[in-house]
Amino acid sequence: MTRRFDWVKLENFCEEIFHKAGLSRKDAKTVAESLIEANLRGVDSHGVVRSYIYLRRIHEKMINPNNEMVVEVDGTVTLLDGKNQMGSVIGKKAMELALAATKEHGTGIVGVKGSNHFGTCAYYLEEAIKEDIVMFVFSNASQTMPPTGGIRPFIGTNPFSFGAPTGNHPPFILDMATSEVARGKIINAFNKGESIPEGWALDKDGNHTTDASKALEGSVLPMAGPKGYALSMLIDILSGVLTGSGFGKYVNNMYENWVNPQNVGHFFIGIDISKFMPVDVFKKRIDKYLDEIKAEPKKRGIKEILIPGEIEYRSKQKRRKMGIELPLKVEKELKEWGKIHDVDLEKALKERQ
Amino acid sequence: MTRRFDWVKLENFCEEIFHKAGLSRKDAKTVAESLIEANLRGVDSHGVVRSYIYLRRIHEKMINPNNEMVVEVDGTVTLLDGKNQMGSVIGKKAMELALAATKEHGTGIVGVKGSNHFGTCAYYLEEAIKEDIVMFVFSNASQTMPPTGGIRPFIGTNPFSFGAPTGNHPPFILDMATSEVARGKIINAFNKGESIPEGWALDKDGNHTTDASKALEGSVLPMAGPKGYALSMLIDILSGVLTGSGFGKYVNNMYENWVNPQNVGHFFIGIDISKFMPVDVFKKRIDKYLDEIKAEPKKRGIKEILIPGEIEYRSKQKRRKMGIELPLKVEKELKEWGKIHDVDLEKALKERQ
Repeated sequence: MTRRFDWVKLENFCEEIFHKAGLSRKDAKTVAESLIEANLRGVDSHGVVRSYIYLRRIHEKMINPNNEMVVEVDGTVTLLDGKNQMGSVIGKKAMELALAATKEHGTGIVGVKGSNHFGTCAYYLEEAIKEDIVMFVFSNASQTMPPTGGIRPFIGTNPFSFGAPTGNHPPFILDMATSEVARGKIINAFNKGESIPEGWALDKDGNHTTDASKALEGSVLPMAGPKGYALSMLIDILSGVLTGSGFGKYVNNMYENWVNPQNVGHFFIGIDISKFMPVDVFKKRIDKYLDEIKAEPKKRGIKEILIPGEIEYRSKQKRRKMGIELPLKVEKELKEWGKIHDVDLEKALKERQ
Repeated sequence: MTRRFDWVKLENFCEEIFHKAGLSRKDAKTVAESLIEANLRGVDSHGVVRSYIYLRRIHEKMINPNNEMVVEVDGTVTLLDGKNQMGSVIGKKAMELALAATKEHGTGIVGVKGSNHFGTCAYYLEEAIKEDIVMFVFSNASQTMPPTGGIRPFIGTNPFSFGAPTGNHPPFILDMATSEVARGKIINAFNKGESIPEGWALDKDGNHTTDASKALEGSVLPMAGPKGYALSMLIDILSGVLTGSGFGKYVNNMYENWVNPQNVGHFFIGIDISKFMPVDVFKKRIDKYLDEIKAEPKKRGIKEILIPGEIEYRSKQKRRKMGIELPLKVEKELKEWGKIHDVDLEKALKERQ
């Protein structure tokens, strides 16, 4: 039976493990926050399930949690060399630099090289939104999707994200992979013995397939065909080509490559709302926009028109109260790492199951 | 029989018509360039076919080609009030302001309010690319697509565009509507009596339809479902909500609304490559990236892996030589406007048909 964990206690557990694995207390807290935030928002694919691989890469010296990052600021533009630190530690630093530049200049751009998998983009957007800054966050990723017309993975499912504050609504948070679906959905179909819809994936020979097992040997397709392919490329151009980081095949797979660091790149663009209009006026305007969309007539069977980030916001409210349910496999992995570092996962259990 | 027109002469014809319709010589040239550039690139939907509606809106005083635009610069951020000038005149001004700010500060943002339909985004990107500036251009548009779960148009097919210079390759130019397909493709299917694939459109009651005539009475669907819906919204938030322009239902349809100006908003973000690395290094890196993508193994039947902007670049080379072929309807409309303003379309014909 799966069990539920208290989010604060589970965050403390993760912080403790990462601290004992060699991260500073502050950095361990950042990593733990990023993971738990994903679970709270219902994006379990980027939650504590990733602890295992992060810890293993630290252990195998594929990540160097004590390296000093290098910051070069030139006016509104900052180049951050992550020096192969933990991805979310680098991401948080980039976000802080982007916020500082944006507040000073009206806009701020931070390009990041030499990074690792940095969790969900939404984690960084939320910090910007608290400060009434509109922000884009992009990251490249290791090869998963073929170019349009190709048959094997070349580009990553490079995430595209954007956040804006609101008045009475949950913040507007768009955080999406540029693939048609998350690979996790194909894994789920496989586990259930179900087929997948045409258009999700190619088999290893580059043919369209509805067979989940063949799809897992092949590649995930970009969203909306050539449009998703192009969006993924632009993210690679900004995050990888322009920053001096890896791009295309030079972004290494964190599960498969145990020789080289990942060399992921990220790209942050901040925009100061107050340069356009008072923040409260903006918030009234965006609320009006969202009110009007939500009031649109709905298809039969649809209860509500949702705005990006709304489902995740509700999940967060709910899971803060009810706890975070962990699959048995994830619980087992955390328990094992807990033993290695002498931290007890049982203490993080939600009292009422 | 359709006929081919010389691109330079056709541009001169358009310039002459728009000048006689009340635009300054310089502005008339900008509008003509923007239209012809679209035709050259093969994007005929945004080419001289639009002259008719632009001229009609000028004639009906729905556009005010002699209004003075108002520029407010605050550091890296510029707010441009287009004052209901011609869209492409406003767009060009915005692009110039964005380039100037980017060169001065490393990044430059221009939000535009009070504008009109401004043609293809690619026209502006090309200018930025010539100056080795990476640029995003967004625009909102009048209501065409339902929100996910909705049944009638609320958001526009708000275009998303991005350009970056290259070394040996054609420039990287992504310029796409956030809809699954252009409405023009549905019109084409209707004209041929063909059905359309599921997923392109809803009928007027909000049901999925493969009947092109029902689709034309209904609404075009966003690309990639909720992802396209969210992308279209973010463009509206930047171009409309943040700039103080129209958004959602406050962006008026240029074909249907003869009472109010369109009040379209645009958003430009420029990034100076040289703040990250020498431009020639960037160009070598992006060439390597594109070389590697193009060398990927291809699906059977696919001759070549293409990069965004490549087809349009080739079209431009070809049409500069071979001329621009105009549908009879468009030729007729141009001829009529030519008569009104005493400009002879026949003189723009390509000598060899």
